[in-house]
Amino acid sequence: MNHSPTETGGPAQPLRYLSKLEAAAIETELLKDYHFGKQQLIELWGHACAIGIVKAFPLSSLGKRQPTVLVVCGPDQNGCIGLVCARHLRMFEYAPTIFYPKRSSHSLHKDFMVQCERMDIPFLSYLPTEVQLINDAYNLVVDAVAGPETELADLGEPYGGILLTLKQLKIAVASQPGQCTCETLWNLSLYAEGWEAEGDNSDGITPEVLISLTAPKKCAAGFSGKHFLAGRFLPFDIQRKYELNLPEYSGTDCLVEL
Amino acid sequence: MNHSPTETGGPAQPLRYLSKLEAAAIETELLKDYHFGKQQLIELWGHACAIGIVKAFPLSSLGKRQPTVLVVCGPDQNGCIGLVCARHLRMFEYAPTIFYPKRSSHSLHKDFMVQCERMDIPFLSYLPTEVQLINDAYNLVVDAVAGPETELADLGEPYGGILLTLKQLKIAVASQPGQCTCETLWNLSLYAEGWEAEGDNSDGITPEVLISLTAPKKCAAGFSGKHFLAGRFLPFDIQRKYELNLPEYSGTDCLVEL
Repeated sequence: MNHSPTETGGPAQPLRYLSKLEAAAIETELLKDYHFGKQQLIELWGHACAIGIVKAFPLSSLGKRQPTVLVVCGPDQNGCIGLVCARHLRMFEYAPTIFYPKRSSHSLHKDFMVQCERMDIPFLSYLPTEVQLINDAYNLVVDAVAGPETELADLGEPYGGILLTLKQLKIAVASQPGQCTCETLWNLSLYAEGWEAEGDNSDGITPEVLISLTAPKKCAAGFSGKHFLAGRFLPFDIQRKYELNLPEYSGTDCLVEL
Repeated sequence: MNHSPTETGGPAQPLRYLSKLEAAAIETELLKDYHFGKQQLIELWGHACAIGIVKAFPLSSLGKRQPTVLVVCGPDQNGCIGLVCARHLRMFEYAPTIFYPKRSSHSLHKDFMVQCERMDIPFLSYLPTEVQLINDAYNLVVDAVAGPETELADLGEPYGGILLTLKQLKIAVASQPGQCTCETLWNLSLYAEGWEAEGDNSDGITPEVLISLTAPKKCAAGFSGKHFLAGRFLPFDIQRKYELNLPEYSGTDCLVEL
């Protein structure tokens, strides 16, 4: 763990993991008080997630002849973050494919989709239930199905079946965190939905790589794998107000490893 | 110059510099056909400009005790790019101050301003006409006054006086390009407005550092200083359609030196 020193030069304070309420309060402050825009934040998050994938799964590490990545997008905001991530992955010379079975009718969300369509990023019309087909085709699966605003129970089909399929995958699964508030989870060979919002994850998954958006949440407190934070834009006043004790980002990096 | 190889493996084609009409056509395609959003693009451009400043003027290179940077913002889109640049510079541990004398009433623009205000980035209420005061206070001045959509003649005061003041500065001036279509110009000790949109710049300025947004324009064809391109988001199809022959960006960099 690389924690930032305190401003007084005293010993570094430990990183603080936010409750679901605190995380929601920060997002509200960003949108209502700071006037950040959703389009702006989704772009920053998706860009950082793509960079996180490059860090965790560099092109040179991919086993297949083509640098294929499957991005599975849910109907809400985290699905959009997945779309932005896919677009930047394309610019980073990866070969993303998107599965986006329930498309949002929100114009903001549709714009992110059109950007991918117009960049000729392929969209799957269905996800093979035969896991071997996915294993054969992709180096990595990005799960951008659910986010903090998503109730898994409300997602319904086809996401129930999708989750069952993804859980069986042996290839790397880079996933977003389902019920883990504001968290984006990229893991290897495990699936993220099922994490409790706070605290004990013993019944959940143990991903190998995790990207927290904005600030780390309690659901990630016991996480022992590779853990990135993507929140370089977070105003220092908010960092202080919530006593986040974030580590220092290096240079102009938009991600820092926790 | 680092030019990309052709897809056929033949000799590298020279970088192509766009006419004003071509640059405008690309922006229209991005907005109308690809459904990119203004908020999204301004965030990407401003972020890249801040990274360009860090590359050209790293903290360790600044002569003053505080890493002060003055960002002078115009009333239109490039002014907003300046605001975003200032915000990211703050996250990069610089100490930006903003001078934004004619504030846009456009809600998109206002949001970018509020973000800076809420992050306690100081706003000057006037620009000292005594050049020495600016020289003493700032390591660097960012000129984000005018952009391709700005007619200098229409800017009026206080920009006429501002330009006169900035022209006298001996400190580094990182400036946006005035009449140079879609160009962002960061220079040392010279001022950007006055560049012709295309072709001959003999009556204009000779900046030391230039950042081109999206793609390089004809006004920069004869430029011999440090020249960055910030357009990693530009879809490959557009790059091919306009035969841009852009150099390859390294890793996940959002800037490449031309």
